Amino acid sequence: MSQPSYVIGVDLGGTHARVGLISTNGKALEILEKALPSSRQPETGLQTVIELTQSLLSKYRQLSIIGVGSGVTGPVNKQSGTVINPYTEPAWQYRPFVKPLQEACGLPVVLENDADAAALGEYWQGNGQGAERLYVVTIGTGIGTSFIDHGTVYRGLDGAHPEGGHHVIDASSGVHCYCGMVGCWESLASGAAFLNFARQKAVQNPDWLKILAVKDIHHINTPTIIQAASQGDETAMQLVEQEGYYLGLGLLNVISFFVPDKVVLCGGMTRYFNLFEPYIRKVINGHRYMVPAGLVTIQIDSLDYYAGVYGAAYAFLISQQDIA
Amino acid sequence: MSQPSYVIGVDLGGTHARVGLISTNGKALEILEKALPSSRQPETGLQTVIELTQSLLSKYRQLSIIGVGSGVTGPVNKQSGTVINPYTEPAWQYRPFVKPLQEACGLPVVLENDADAAALGEYWQGNGQGAERLYVVTIGTGIGTSFIDHGTVYRGLDGAHPEGGHHVIDASSGVHCYCGMVGCWESLASGAAFLNFARQKAVQNPDWLKILAVKDIHHINTPTIIQAASQGDETAMQLVEQEGYYLGLGLLNVISFFVPDKVVLCGGMTRYFNLFEPYIRKVINGHRYMVPAGLVTIQIDSLDYYAGVYGAAYAFLISQQDIA
Repeated sequence: MSQPSYVIGVDLGGTHARVGLISTNGKALEILEKALPSSRQPETGLQTVIELTQSLLSKYRQLSIIGVGSGVTGPVNKQSGTVINPYTEPAWQYRPFVKPLQEACGLPVVLENDADAAALGEYWQGNGQGAERLYVVTIGTGIGTSFIDHGTVYRGLDGAHPEGGHHVIDASSGVHCYCGMVGCWESLASGAAFLNFARQKAVQNPDWLKILAVKDIHHINTPTIIQAASQGDETAMQLVEQEGYYLGLGLLNVISFFVPDKVVLCGGMTRYFNLFEPYIRKVINGHRYMVPAGLVTIQIDSLDYYAGVYGAAYAFLISQQDIA
Repeated sequence: MSQPSYVIGVDLGGTHARVGLISTNGKALEILEKALPSSRQPETGLQTVIELTQSLLSKYRQLSIIGVGSGVTGPVNKQSGTVINPYTEPAWQYRPFVKPLQEACGLPVVLENDADAAALGEYWQGNGQGAERLYVVTIGTGIGTSFIDHGTVYRGLDGAHPEGGHHVIDASSGVHCYCGMVGCWESLASGAAFLNFARQKAVQNPDWLKILAVKDIHHINTPTIIQAASQGDETAMQLVEQEGYYLGLGLLNVISFFVPDKVVLCGGMTRYFNLFEPYIRKVINGHRYMVPAGLVTIQIDSLDYYAGVYGAAYAFLISQQDIA
C-alpha cells in the first residue's frame, strides 16, 4: 500500500482563521484555529494563515503534503490569486494571497471563495454527499450562497461567484442593504438583520430589555432572543417567526430557480434551525407545486465550523484533476 | 455532397400552434401557423399539431425528414411524453402527446417545455448564439424562464423545469398569484399583471378610460396603454415605469443567482422593451457590484414568434446526439 497523501485546507473568515491537514480521502489529521484580532491590518489574515500553515508543515514534515487549498471570505479572483472584498472585510481587499502563501510554504496554492469552499466540504464529506444538485446557504452575519452542480462549483460570467444572498425578496420592506438594494435576502434574514430587528423592538419598547435581562440594546445578542422566545416571550417569538418567514421566502426562491436535490444550511444561525423550521416549511408549503418544492431536502450542515477547511482541501484536489 | 436532412419543429402555445420544417443546419424551409379556437377540448392542441405536421410531411415527402421536436406550454413530463399544465392550459393537462403524434406521423418525437424550446432556438439560431450561460425570460401573459448552461438546458430534481417566473420579489406587495405566493415576479411584471394594474387605475379613476379612448376596463389592452404613455399621459407613464421596475428587480435577481453572460427576453411584452429599458437599467445600476451585473448583456430575442419552432427542432437534434 502506498503512503497516503495530504492537503492543507485553509479557511480565512471574518473572525477566525482555521487551517487543517486533510488526507486525500477526506479525513482530518489535525485542524488549528486562531481568532483574528478585532483591530487589524491588511496583512493580518494572510500572516495568521501562514503562521498556522507553517506550524502544521513543520509538525508533519515526514508526511507527503501535496498542496494548499484556501477558502477566503470573498469575492476572490482565482486567476490573479487576490481577494476583493470591499464590503465585509475591507482589511484585506485587493491583497495578493496566493503568491505570498505559496512562497511561505513552498507548495502550490489554490484560492477559492469561502462560501464555495464550505459547500465543497459538505459535498465531499458532509450532508451534501451524493446530491447531484447541491445548494448551500451560509446564514451567519450575512448570507452567502453556493451551487454545486454535479460536483462542480457553478460560476457565472468571468468566473463570478453568484451572490444569491443579495437577491431581493421584499422590495417594499424598506430595509436598505449595502448591496444597494432594498429588501434583499441578507438584509432581512441574516444574523445581523435578526439582531437589527430585535434592537428596533427594544427601541420601540425599552421594557423589553428587562425581559431579555440586558442593560441596553447593544447587549442584545441572538442567544438572548432565542432564550426569551423559548420561554414564550411574544416579542421574541415574533422575531423568530419573522426570521423563519424570510428564510423560507429566500429558500423557496432558490427552489424556484434551481430545484436542487438538496439544500444544506450552514453558519451560526443554523444552531437555531429547529425553531425557524416550522415557519420555513409554512412558506414552502404555501407554494402550489409549480416546481416539486416538497421533494427538495432541506437540512443543516454536518461539518459545522470545519466545512470550509475540508472544502478548501477538496478544491485543491479538484484543481489537480483539472490539470491531469 | 450528401442530401441535407430536416427536422419538424412544433411549438404549441396557449393561443397558436406553429409547425416548421427546419434543416439540420438551422434554416427554415417553411413554417405553418394556426390560431387555436378559444373554446377547445383536451385534444384540440394535439389535433392541430398533427394536421400541420402531416401537411408539411405530405408536401415535402421527397426530403429526408428524420424526426419531430415539440415544445409545449409546460410543465411537461419528457419521460412519459405527457403534458401536465393545470394552470395556464387546463384543456390539455395530463394528455399523452408524444405517442399519438408519433403514430400519426411515423417519426420519432421528442417533447420539451415551450420556454426551454424557445431558449434553445435563441441559443441555436438567435441572439443567444455563443453565450456560455444563456438565461431566457419569456414575458407574455405569464413569465417563463429557461437556463441554457454551456448548450444544455438546465433541469432540476427529477428533471423539473425551474419556474423562475414565480420567484418572490416583493412579498409585501399584496398581489396574490395562482402559484400560492404573494408578489412573485409573474404576478407583478407579466403582461397580465400590467393589464391588471391598468384596470385598477381605471376603476380608481374612470375618467382615465376617456384618455385611453376605450368604453370600459375590459377594452383596455397593452397597446392602448403604451400609446397613452407615448403621448405623455402620466398614469400610463407610471404603469410603464412600474413595469420596468418590476422587470428590473426580477432580472437583477436572475443576475445575482446566475451571473449569465447574456439574458435574452422574448414574448409579447418585449415589443415595448425600449420603453421599459431605462427603468430596468435604473434598478440594475442601483446594485453595487456584488456581482458584475453591468457586464451582463440584456437584449430581446431575434427569432420572434419562431424561436420555439427552431428550438424544438434543435431539441430533437440534441436528443439524437445523446443517443449516439
